[in-house]
Amino acid sequence: MFELYAFATPNSVKSPIALEEMGLSYVLKPVNIRQGEQKAPDFLALNPNAKVPVLVDGALVLTESAAILVHLAEKTGRPLPRDGADRARVFEQLFFHASALSPAFGNAGFFKRRATDPQPLAQARFVAGDDFTIADIAHFGWLWRREFPGLTLDGRSNLVRWFDAVAARPAVRRAIARVEALLQAA
Amino acid sequence: MFELYAFATPNSVKSPIALEEMGLSYVLKPVNIRQGEQKAPDFLALNPNAKVPVLVDGALVLTESAAILVHLAEKTGRPLPRDGADRARVFEQLFFHASALSPAFGNAGFFKRRATDPQPLAQARFVAGDDFTIADIAHFGWLWRREFPGLTLDGRSNLVRWFDAVAARPAVRRAIARVEALLQAA
Repeated sequence: MFELYAFATPNSVKSPIALEEMGLSYVLKPVNIRQGEQKAPDFLALNPNAKVPVLVDGALVLTESAAILVHLAEKTGRPLPRDGADRARVFEQLFFHASALSPAFGNAGFFKRRATDPQPLAQARFVAGDDFTIADIAHFGWLWRREFPGLTLDGRSNLVRWFDAVAARPAVRRAIARVEALLQAA
Repeated sequence: MFELYAFATPNSVKSPIALEEMGLSYVLKPVNIRQGEQKAPDFLALNPNAKVPVLVDGALVLTESAAILVHLAEKTGRPLPRDGADRARVFEQLFFHASALSPAFGNAGFFKRRATDPQPLAQARFVAGDDFTIADIAHFGWLWRREFPGLTLDGRSNLVRWFDAVAARPAVRRAIARVEALLQAA
């Protein structure tokens, strides 16, 4: 059984989506960042950087939301291509996500400066090709919370198509319901 | 034969280090970012985001310096643990690198606000454990160019030990010599 420390944040939501997509059971442990619980000693013992999410998998305590995606994908064998260019594309997107799409890299500015959709979506169904992968999960977190940086998907037809396709997945809907319940309980 | 489009930048240097560590032959194609060559049409065709490095491996044109590290490491089987917690630690560090240590995340601010060395180095020789991995290569790029954000390693004894150990590796020295030669030729 996995334990996931999370809240209803862009980076948190990726982990429950992955767990749901992979059909893995998990206990969701709320960390109410509105109350500063990420700075409590118990949580800092798990992640000295005071950030959600944190995955506990037996003896392994793992931080960094994208590293959690890779760990779960490699445990279950999906959704992550085994080798070759398809696999390289997923990592390219994961690191593009972490370094360019993440909030502190200037999420709003990045979208507002770019006139077009993210490149891959003009040619492919998902961000790393025609199959859904953990790179889609990584991108989804921030686009799901796009009201926070004041962004819209207006006029981005490929991005809208992609977002709707990901958001409609049953596993994604289950994951969002579970993290949104954390807000109501908080 | 790999082709690497690069310049003497923090993110560029990681790829030649990896190639040298793995004993792979490569052609280094200079992209003089001081002259704006990263915005030339030929280069934009390789990477629409106008960033070095770019790796060309046969039909695969790959961007994102950390994704290049993963691709090369998986091709050669090193330096990246095959599975388990050791492997998860490497990805945790790679994404920590991409999202927190990278320049646009506020490199200088990150170091200046932190009173202590990066956590893992107090307990281990390298950032993801006692063995050298691609996560060390990822971190090394920015610390090698630490004059740019005005940082020093003063008083960070673990970080100094780590930096010196990485910098002394023959492969790292060869890689740095090759990318610094790009500056002289530019």
